[in-house]
Amino acid sequence: MEIRSRLAEVFPMLQRPDLEREIMEHATFITAAAGEVIIREGQYLKVLPLVISGSLRVSQQSDGREILLYYVQPGETCIMSLSSCFFNVESPSTAIADTQTGILCVPTRFIKEWQRRYDPWNEFVIRTFQSRYNELLDLFRTVAFDTIEVRVINYLKSYSSRENTRNIPITHLALANALGTTRVVISRILKRFEQEGKLQLLHGSIRITGL
Amino acid sequence: MEIRSRLAEVFPMLQRPDLEREIMEHATFITAAAGEVIIREGQYLKVLPLVISGSLRVSQQSDGREILLYYVQPGETCIMSLSSCFFNVESPSTAIADTQTGILCVPTRFIKEWQRRYDPWNEFVIRTFQSRYNELLDLFRTVAFDTIEVRVINYLKSYSSRENTRNIPITHLALANALGTTRVVISRILKRFEQEGKLQLLHGSIRITGL
Repeated sequence: MEIRSRLAEVFPMLQRPDLEREIMEHATFITAAAGEVIIREGQYLKVLPLVISGSLRVSQQSDGREILLYYVQPGETCIMSLSSCFFNVESPSTAIADTQTGILCVPTRFIKEWQRRYDPWNEFVIRTFQSRYNELLDLFRTVAFDTIEVRVINYLKSYSSRENTRNIPITHLALANALGTTRVVISRILKRFEQEGKLQLLHGSIRITGL
Repeated sequence: MEIRSRLAEVFPMLQRPDLEREIMEHATFITAAAGEVIIREGQYLKVLPLVISGSLRVSQQSDGREILLYYVQPGETCIMSLSSCFFNVESPSTAIADTQTGILCVPTRFIKEWQRRYDPWNEFVIRTFQSRYNELLDLFRTVAFDTIEVRVINYLKSYSSRENTRNIPITHLALANALGTTRVVISRILKRFEQEGKLQLLHGSIRITGL
């Protein structure tokens, strides 16, 4: 009863009597202590966690260090868990209770079944993906471009003045390696610079036209 | 017939006779010339584009300049269009045909209806979100952390040695502004540094413990 009213409170988008009844009937409620590992990277998930109090901290290991991806707050589920359950693949990340956390665990098989049967559930699933994507995009935009862009310009200008040439014989990959980023990022930036008339992309070299 | 076989070829995941029949019956085929604007930022969408040949270039305006988000290749749809159609909100981005591009335009109302009726369609929808999210996450990881992290460390160290103190009176927001990024990014990095024992986060200041 306590859990049911908390569910209604933090998941207002799921408030439909028949759907609520299903959730209460099939989901298992657990309470995790702060620091408790809920999902381990590489594990197959049997349940989708709906956070009803506290929060989960979702992170990945990369080159031996931890990268914090996001927190799952009350009223949310975890996009990585959702994908893992949906496609029955290993979890790409670890989820740890950040404080004492109340979780409703929905058995995997209901994800698709409820998508078919309950519009609010389907919208919740899509909203989870959409809002995390937008959040990540915002982060990416603020972090990625300004810094790398400036470094690309600096690299090209300094090569140009050092060698006294407007033709810089470097591939996108080599430039990426030189600046400690990926080819995809460099290509994206160079293409935009080309459209802005700043440079011309040739085969295996870059020609400065208006930096 | 030509379009139908091309659909089967580039969208093998949608190959189910009844679903294919629905797509062919309700979707409209258009061919866009290179450079043609298919979707404008701020527009409400009436159709979801399925790319069957060529490609779409999806971008956003930000501070008067264009940021390339991704390309939509044959066999794919656009995650931003999908969200806009699904929630009936304005498109947050512009899509332009990158080369001559063949597009099957699915009227918006079928997105949810087919999700309920056809598992392969539902999986296609979820896969679209999942793979774009993962792609963006990869980009973010490679670009975001190394550069900003190093700059955070440099900032703190230089303040510390300049003022001869281990206590740096700066908020996350002020540090973000100083480094030209967002509070969210700075908090994320500082929290990790704290867990690694490098520093301690106090109210309104940061105490260096092991940088």
